[in-house]
Amino acid sequence: MTLRLDTLTFDCADVMHVARFWTDALGWELDPESEPDGALVRDPSGRSDGLYFQPVPESKVAKNRLHLDLRPSGSMAAEVERLEGLGATVVRRVDEEGSFWTVMQDPEGNELCVLRGPEDGWSPEG
Amino acid sequence: MTLRLDTLTFDCADVMHVARFWTDALGWELDPESEPDGALVRDPSGRSDGLYFQPVPESKVAKNRLHLDLRPSGSMAAEVERLEGLGATVVRRVDEEGSFWTVMQDPEGNELCVLRGPEDGWSPEG
Repeated sequence: MTLRLDTLTFDCADVMHVARFWTDALGWELDPESEPDGALVRDPSGRSDGLYFQPVPESKVAKNRLHLDLRPSGSMAAEVERLEGLGATVVRRVDEEGSFWTVMQDPEGNELCVLRGPEDGWSPEG
Repeated sequence: MTLRLDTLTFDCADVMHVARFWTDALGWELDPESEPDGALVRDPSGRSDGLYFQPVPESKVAKNRLHLDLRPSGSMAAEVERLEGLGATVVRRVDEEGSFWTVMQDPEGNELCVLRGPEDGWSPEG
């Protein structure tokens, strides 16, 4: 292996607005050394790669071609409601092939999906 | 924590074309059970979350607002050349604040950055 994933970087109009949303959404931590040019948000468990938020002059004009899928520890509905309280919006709920998930956008419109949790009949074994 | 990262999902015109690029770029493995509707690519070391590739009808019309940053185990130049051989293209090289990196696009135009490696003077301690 000659390349490894380092960070996933978000283009932002308001870096701290988006960074705080993802910090609260995932229960991760803002690296205090990363401001003010950009914000680095780390998974305190070390399980996932970090997220980096950088300022860009242009605004979002189309659906992103990649997005994060998020797995609830409880139910999808509870997490969707919690993310709405943090500033995300629901785009649509999808029911497909015996599964379902909720498409949302973060406060700057970046798409994300909230998947089913254990309380929705999902199990790690499929 | 009530949400965890599950997968990072790419919208694709040609699922297997994009999935094979990322499999080769990262040295990851295609999950044989994930075809034909979508392709799941996993990090065999378990260090990173998986990538999922799904078909969508629309094509890419603007720069994605999020992208992956990739860290070479050797040098940036060698990895940029290797990724070009896999079908990626160079968008530009950026030199900024004592650092540098190369902005590229995967075979369907998804932006990615190849960072400096140990042979470029980078070290994990900064």
